[in-house]
Amino acid sequence: MLIVKKFGGTSVADAERIRHVAGIIADDYSEGHDLVVVLSAQGDTTDDLIAKAAELNENPSRREMDVLLATGEQASVALMAMALEKLGLPVVSLSGRQAGIRTNTDYGSARIEKVDGERIRGELDRRRIVIVAGFQGINRNDDTTTLGRGGSDTTAVALAAALHADVCQFYKDVEGVYTSDPRKIPGARKLDEITYDEMMELASLGAQVLHNRSVQMAKRYGVELEVCSSFERKPGTIVKEVIDMEKTKISGVAKDTNTARIAVMGLADEPGIAFRVFRVLSNAKIVVDIILQSIGRDGTKDISFTVARSDGAAAVKVLSAQQSALGFSELDVSETVAKVSIVGAGMMSASGVATTMFEALYDAKVNINMISTSEIKISVLVNEEDADRAVSAIHRKFFED
Amino acid sequence: MLIVKKFGGTSVADAERIRHVAGIIADDYSEGHDLVVVLSAQGDTTDDLIAKAAELNENPSRREMDVLLATGEQASVALMAMALEKLGLPVVSLSGRQAGIRTNTDYGSARIEKVDGERIRGELDRRRIVIVAGFQGINRNDDTTTLGRGGSDTTAVALAAALHADVCQFYKDVEGVYTSDPRKIPGARKLDEITYDEMMELASLGAQVLHNRSVQMAKRYGVELEVCSSFERKPGTIVKEVIDMEKTKISGVAKDTNTARIAVMGLADEPGIAFRVFRVLSNAKIVVDIILQSIGRDGTKDISFTVARSDGAAAVKVLSAQQSALGFSELDVSETVAKVSIVGAGMMSASGVATTMFEALYDAKVNINMISTSEIKISVLVNEEDADRAVSAIHRKFFED
Repeated sequence: MLIVKKFGGTSVADAERIRHVAGIIADDYSEGHDLVVVLSAQGDTTDDLIAKAAELNENPSRREMDVLLATGEQASVALMAMALEKLGLPVVSLSGRQAGIRTNTDYGSARIEKVDGERIRGELDRRRIVIVAGFQGINRNDDTTTLGRGGSDTTAVALAAALHADVCQFYKDVEGVYTSDPRKIPGARKLDEITYDEMMELASLGAQVLHNRSVQMAKRYGVELEVCSSFERKPGTIVKEVIDMEKTKISGVAKDTNTARIAVMGLADEPGIAFRVFRVLSNAKIVVDIILQSIGRDGTKDISFTVARSDGAAAVKVLSAQQSALGFSELDVSETVAKVSIVGAGMMSASGVATTMFEALYDAKVNINMISTSEIKISVLVNEEDADRAVSAIHRKFFED
Repeated sequence: MLIVKKFGGTSVADAERIRHVAGIIADDYSEGHDLVVVLSAQGDTTDDLIAKAAELNENPSRREMDVLLATGEQASVALMAMALEKLGLPVVSLSGRQAGIRTNTDYGSARIEKVDGERIRGELDRRRIVIVAGFQGINRNDDTTTLGRGGSDTTAVALAAALHADVCQFYKDVEGVYTSDPRKIPGARKLDEITYDEMMELASLGAQVLHNRSVQMAKRYGVELEVCSSFERKPGTIVKEVIDMEKTKISGVAKDTNTARIAVMGLADEPGIAFRVFRVLSNAKIVVDIILQSIGRDGTKDISFTVARSDGAAAVKVLSAQQSALGFSELDVSETVAKVSIVGAGMMSASGVATTMFEALYDAKVNINMISTSEIKISVLVNEEDADRAVSAIHRKFFED
């Protein structure tokens, strides 16, 4: 099998952990697999580099920031290669450029345009373990770029796609993807399988096991993913296109507190008003999540929506600036809300999932502020103080009863 | 003017020093010069990286070591670029690879084979200040290499040669090249000019202002060098092929304590004996400096020579192992010796330089163990405890009287 493995910054934070990861790699190599290993920078390296830069320039160019940050992953891969050499294994470390990661020129948040897998294939043909610096690539100017948030995950999936790897494994400090946060919900259990879509909904809900960008790419190229434990050698959770839908109606329950609700009240009940409100927000690059529009009454209506909590103040500011143009009477913002969601590809073919969820919330005496549904997700906005109780109640109803 | 400037690790050790260097660069840029700046890694970075590697593997491959070490210069150049951006200057940082430094495949001590200056020329045409990571290059396998000792100096001279720079400036914490060590000889004065050959002799004598490898390259390609102060804006010492020989007979007096004297006594006084002794040493990769052979007497003779002090024990070991083959009676080693030398292209055309030197030593009651002369250098081996007194006496005679 050709396996791409990805380890995050915590997994390579110090010599002891690097040795531990080297042990995992050595085991898999001894089983005859071809291995490509993608690494992040060690522990706090990236933050330390950012702090160093800030001492000199609070607003450096993204190009130079990328040159600086790319050194973090560069060091990781060399150190891991040395640890594997110590075990007597044939190994070679490669930068993003050497691994063929070609990106566009958006420094700091570059997109991968192409992967030229020739060098890696050559190294694998020589039976070498290939260690690749994640998060980085090279653009058409021959300059180093970094891929932004979730960059190393994206590197791993892109390589797995280009090399037609059998699986792309992400090593985490959990055993896989759970039906809910195992630290909070004692009954949470590990899922054997989950679909790409479910995985993305869970990630956007704050489960953050894998960054959506990498799951999206995996879905597009049909790369099978596995989320597995850095500590225990046992199967994790497989992420793929289609799983046995009969098995579970829903895959997980998640809470997202990174949300704020904004209500724009007393808008004229006329065509185009929603468009004008959301244009103001999109011009300010604010991403809107759940949207609720009240039914018109007395010639006016209200529009409520949620945004990332960090965007709450900015949303209020840009809307207030346009109050007379938009013609609303009042703006209300609440930052003490949370989004609780159930996700499941199975719910498409199952009836009563929403009913069961609402019943659980009723039983737990949780008031619902807003509701949003998609084909594989039902989200409710609740008061933040009720969120954990809501998650427990829903999880119990679907998984523990 | 096109100027290549080189700053060492101490000059970029922290944010404050980086800002200071940025100020020097900004001044020169404002005068309209085209600037290429070569940097070393910050302060102790290289040592820290070596320590990290040692935790994982006491004997890592040189290839991976080079990948690791190259990150040090990479970070320096990005940080310097940020400091210059902060001053509002157009700047771009380049890795050794991007700067076109092509090397052979000797990881850890690669030689520069070619400099492809296209990228740098393009950046200079756009009026950008170009900051280049020293010490590193890329080989024909598309892998990062490092240049070994004196690597960043060599990068600077190689770029100056390829770009036909008007001068290659080395910034130091001294004002230039002195007639002797200014910390020890109060009368030492800065030289305005010195030849490449003198510079190399001085470097090999422990003055270590510039690494010989870079001076050699500068001589070969006719690159004018300047050693100048990081702290004061005034002319330093120019290093070039021919200087006004009438000006000074000798350029400097230097002491080198990194030496050990070995005497091989009671060798047969027959042809080929010296060859056999030194073949043993060269097979062991031990470099011999001064050689003295006594005149034969009673059918035997003695050969004395000096080696780097760190090679003293090894030299004794390999010679002892061959005692019967070489047929010597006794081996004597002294590690409490020092080499004191005067260097000067001017001495070729001046008589009495050696006499003046020996007179100074006689006046100072310093006993001479060995003497070695070349066209531009006279060295004497003295007891280490006499060395400083010898340097003072010679310096006084030539420069202060």
